[in-house]
Amino acid sequence: MIDHIRDGAEIYRRSFATIRAEADLAALPADLEPVAVRMIHSCGMVDLVADLAYTPDLVEAARTALAGGAPVLCDAQMIASGITRRRLPAANEVLCTLSDPRVPGLAQRLGTTRSAAAVDLWADRLAGAVVAIGNAPTALFRLLELLAAGARPPAAIIGVPVGFVGAVESKVELIGRAPAPYLVVRGRRGGSAMAVAAVNALASEVE
Amino acid sequence: MIDHIRDGAEIYRRSFATIRAEADLAALPADLEPVAVRMIHSCGMVDLVADLAYTPDLVEAARTALAGGAPVLCDAQMIASGITRRRLPAANEVLCTLSDPRVPGLAQRLGTTRSAAAVDLWADRLAGAVVAIGNAPTALFRLLELLAAGARPPAAIIGVPVGFVGAVESKVELIGRAPAPYLVVRGRRGGSAMAVAAVNALASEVE
Repeated sequence: MIDHIRDGAEIYRRSFATIRAEADLAALPADLEPVAVRMIHSCGMVDLVADLAYTPDLVEAARTALAGGAPVLCDAQMIASGITRRRLPAANEVLCTLSDPRVPGLAQRLGTTRSAAAVDLWADRLAGAVVAIGNAPTALFRLLELLAAGARPPAAIIGVPVGFVGAVESKVELIGRAPAPYLVVRGRRGGSAMAVAAVNALASEVE
Repeated sequence: MIDHIRDGAEIYRRSFATIRAEADLAALPADLEPVAVRMIHSCGMVDLVADLAYTPDLVEAARTALAGGAPVLCDAQMIASGITRRRLPAANEVLCTLSDPRVPGLAQRLGTTRSAAAVDLWADRLAGAVVAIGNAPTALFRLLELLAAGARPPAAIIGVPVGFVGAVESKVELIGRAPAPYLVVRGRRGGSAMAVAAVNALASEVE
């Protein structure tokens, strides 16, 4: 047997205590603090907090929407897979349209990626939803285009696409336009695990 | 319309070119280079390469196993969800046992986490498999315990658990014991997306 902590609850407690000891969380709105802690927990990097950008109403907007039964719209199946269903307050639908059979044809017609085309299929569910984009910058760009064209906005946007082409720019665009309350990790960092952590923290205050 | 690159293939090309321009990949074995590139792509951090630890036979061992039909054993459903099935060379089974109904009881009897107990359920599939641990340090610790107790080893271990309690230590233990060819991200960083990226790169040489 290898000596290590085997108690899951104790692992969470010590992890969150370490994050709170090391991360500079003082400047965050009080209700965003546990969300930031969980996002840091998902990636192992306490300096993530320096790259957070957000509107002050993000947490309240997302929590109110989820309590009211809003769906969670995800750009990647990994995000949908990672969201802990029992944390959701209203058995909320968690939807990823990327594997919808209409997506490849739609992407071709729009001249864009499948991730972006999949956002078009959110149409009738977008108003008041909680959006979690953790993978594709093109999905976030497409969301911003649809909103600029008059689509009714979601309640909250978790905008943490990752990578080297479009990630930085799409998040700058989200911050600049602010079409809805948002939470962003500026820069190249992001990803499905961070998006999942944010949604799981917004879904329930239980740590 | 917002000006940005909408061609998925071109986004991949530019992303991988940026990574190769910025990351210090020269010291890696040639066959590990595309695996490192894809892992960097998954997290947006070119400095990840400094934390890679591996045995020189990792890529060949994993590719040979996958070509021979080996299953991929994952510690988190997000990893199983993220692996691109069409990249797998032999329609390989992708297995996560975490939601198996026997897991909660087994975890209680063993006095450990559900993630660790789920590893016990890999038993009859472990020999020659490709293991991808991207979430729970306790899963990696448990794998090392089972191997020390005489379980037949997997063909390759992707060991990238993330976090603040046990992640560093479990990866140090894997490197020290080296019970099979391995690929590790030392330190706190890791996660499901990195594990997925590694498996997807090992599954196919197509970029």
